[in-house]
Amino acid sequence: MINQLIKKIEEMSAPIVVGLDPMLGFIPQQLLNKAYSEKGENLEGAAEAIWQYNKGIVDATYDLIPAVKPQIAMYEQFGIEGLKAFHKTVEYCKEKGLVVIGDIKRGDIGSTSAAYATGHLGKVTIGENSYRGFDEDFITVNPYLGSDGILPFIEVCKQENKGLFILVKTSNPSSGEFQDQMVDGRPLYELVGQKVKEWGELHMGSSYSYIGAVVGATYPEMGKILRKLMPKSYILVPGYGAQGGKAEDLVHYFNKDGLGAIVNSSRGIIAAYQQKGYEKFGPEGYADAARQAVVAMREDLKKAWSTNR
Amino acid sequence: MINQLIKKIEEMSAPIVVGLDPMLGFIPQQLLNKAYSEKGENLEGAAEAIWQYNKGIVDATYDLIPAVKPQIAMYEQFGIEGLKAFHKTVEYCKEKGLVVIGDIKRGDIGSTSAAYATGHLGKVTIGENSYRGFDEDFITVNPYLGSDGILPFIEVCKQENKGLFILVKTSNPSSGEFQDQMVDGRPLYELVGQKVKEWGELHMGSSYSYIGAVVGATYPEMGKILRKLMPKSYILVPGYGAQGGKAEDLVHYFNKDGLGAIVNSSRGIIAAYQQKGYEKFGPEGYADAARQAVVAMREDLKKAWSTNR
Repeated sequence: MINQLIKKIEEMSAPIVVGLDPMLGFIPQQLLNKAYSEKGENLEGAAEAIWQYNKGIVDATYDLIPAVKPQIAMYEQFGIEGLKAFHKTVEYCKEKGLVVIGDIKRGDIGSTSAAYATGHLGKVTIGENSYRGFDEDFITVNPYLGSDGILPFIEVCKQENKGLFILVKTSNPSSGEFQDQMVDGRPLYELVGQKVKEWGELHMGSSYSYIGAVVGATYPEMGKILRKLMPKSYILVPGYGAQGGKAEDLVHYFNKDGLGAIVNSSRGIIAAYQQKGYEKFGPEGYADAARQAVVAMREDLKKAWSTNR
Repeated sequence: MINQLIKKIEEMSAPIVVGLDPMLGFIPQQLLNKAYSEKGENLEGAAEAIWQYNKGIVDATYDLIPAVKPQIAMYEQFGIEGLKAFHKTVEYCKEKGLVVIGDIKRGDIGSTSAAYATGHLGKVTIGENSYRGFDEDFITVNPYLGSDGILPFIEVCKQENKGLFILVKTSNPSSGEFQDQMVDGRPLYELVGQKVKEWGELHMGSSYSYIGAVVGATYPEMGKILRKLMPKSYILVPGYGAQGGKAEDLVHYFNKDGLGAIVNSSRGIIAAYQQKGYEKFGPEGYADAARQAVVAMREDLKKAWSTNR
């Protein structure tokens, strides 16, 4: 799957992942009205609106992007109905040839981590058959519980040729509260990065590992150090755009081969129509605005790469 | 809700939470067969078996215990159908008067943490109404992302009179990989414990905070230190029994008032019938065996308290 992700990034010349993190406030009123009139102004109706909204964005962008990253919390807040929309979105994106990174940030121990891995990446055996729960291609996981929490995920990744992005240095302002604490003269996130490198060696693709890292765009100096510390790990980079990360800061998240990182943008793309410069699209043009925002992001990253590397 | 939890613990004289972490291997064959014949030998059938199995255990124990802790991973591995069984279990336990601790170990930032909090503790607004997704009383959360990841949960807890248990020192063998790293002369878990204390002050009940901590039974010396560091935080203690934690080790997780901790047992109770000393119950007596195991655990904790405090 890491090989497939890289192949798609190269084909599209776009190390871009679109964060499918729908909020009701992003969804055009007409689309909401339609979903509510069909399914009711309730959890089911909201889930239908989210699904239709996602479908519009995917249809308008799938030929430009290698991957999507649905954030499961945005679906889980609508309970079972929301999770059905998540599942439908994952399935649809895969049909469209997109690599799906489930941003689920799960993490537990032993048989519990194994159960999450089964539900999101693998299959569960029931009687003589096996079934898939959510079936993403990659998921994000939290490292706080140590190897016991990570290795069961890697086991399933090996069986399924799937992968992980492990939280190393997150993009939020208070990420340093624990992640930046100095341990034997270096910050904790470097220690976690070192472990990601080691875990990555357990499951290698052709040139990169199936086991990657999450490093926020908002901490470029740390990104530079982590890039060198984990040369074979793909870095999933949140925080570009809305959170303040700039393209020129991201050049050092890539290796010299131009690979090694994939940059996420969520509201900057899916809610582009609500933003400055995209007013002309209007709510009914939300999907076209998203496409335009992908093109702009691709150009922004390209320009930064050619002038700053 | 913390006041209600404490009231129930005192009424039952049992600082016990039963971990509803069903695995197919725990479920008696007869119950599996019945569920498969009704719903099919598939995700729906497995979810039905889990739900019936849980119901049997809850019916046999709810008058002896204050709380249950369903581990969502065990349901999530069966996809949407499994999560329906989780939801049904949460609802049923609340009907039976039990406090429900959703062991979900979620954690993200900003609007994403807020979405998880909404889905599991609060309500989501759709049009002019609001709806609840899963509606647990407490949930477990992961602190790796710092305050940005915790405060949105606390906001919802304040609105709803609900609570959290934040991972501080987990029970697994490799928990020390990051949690025990020394930071300014003290281990990281103490720093996290210090923050739990501070976060706890933001949302106090009558005598304890709504914001508690998870500290594994397998590290009693650390439990002793953390108890003193966070005197007003309830400690949720996994790792008793199957994982090796002994009752006498747990005395110092409690305050002098006999409160301040609630000890979890999962397979030691729900799969007691498969264990030494409970053979006589057989698979058909799994619920009675669970009741007997609760009584034995209560006595074990009482004895340890009276001889070791």
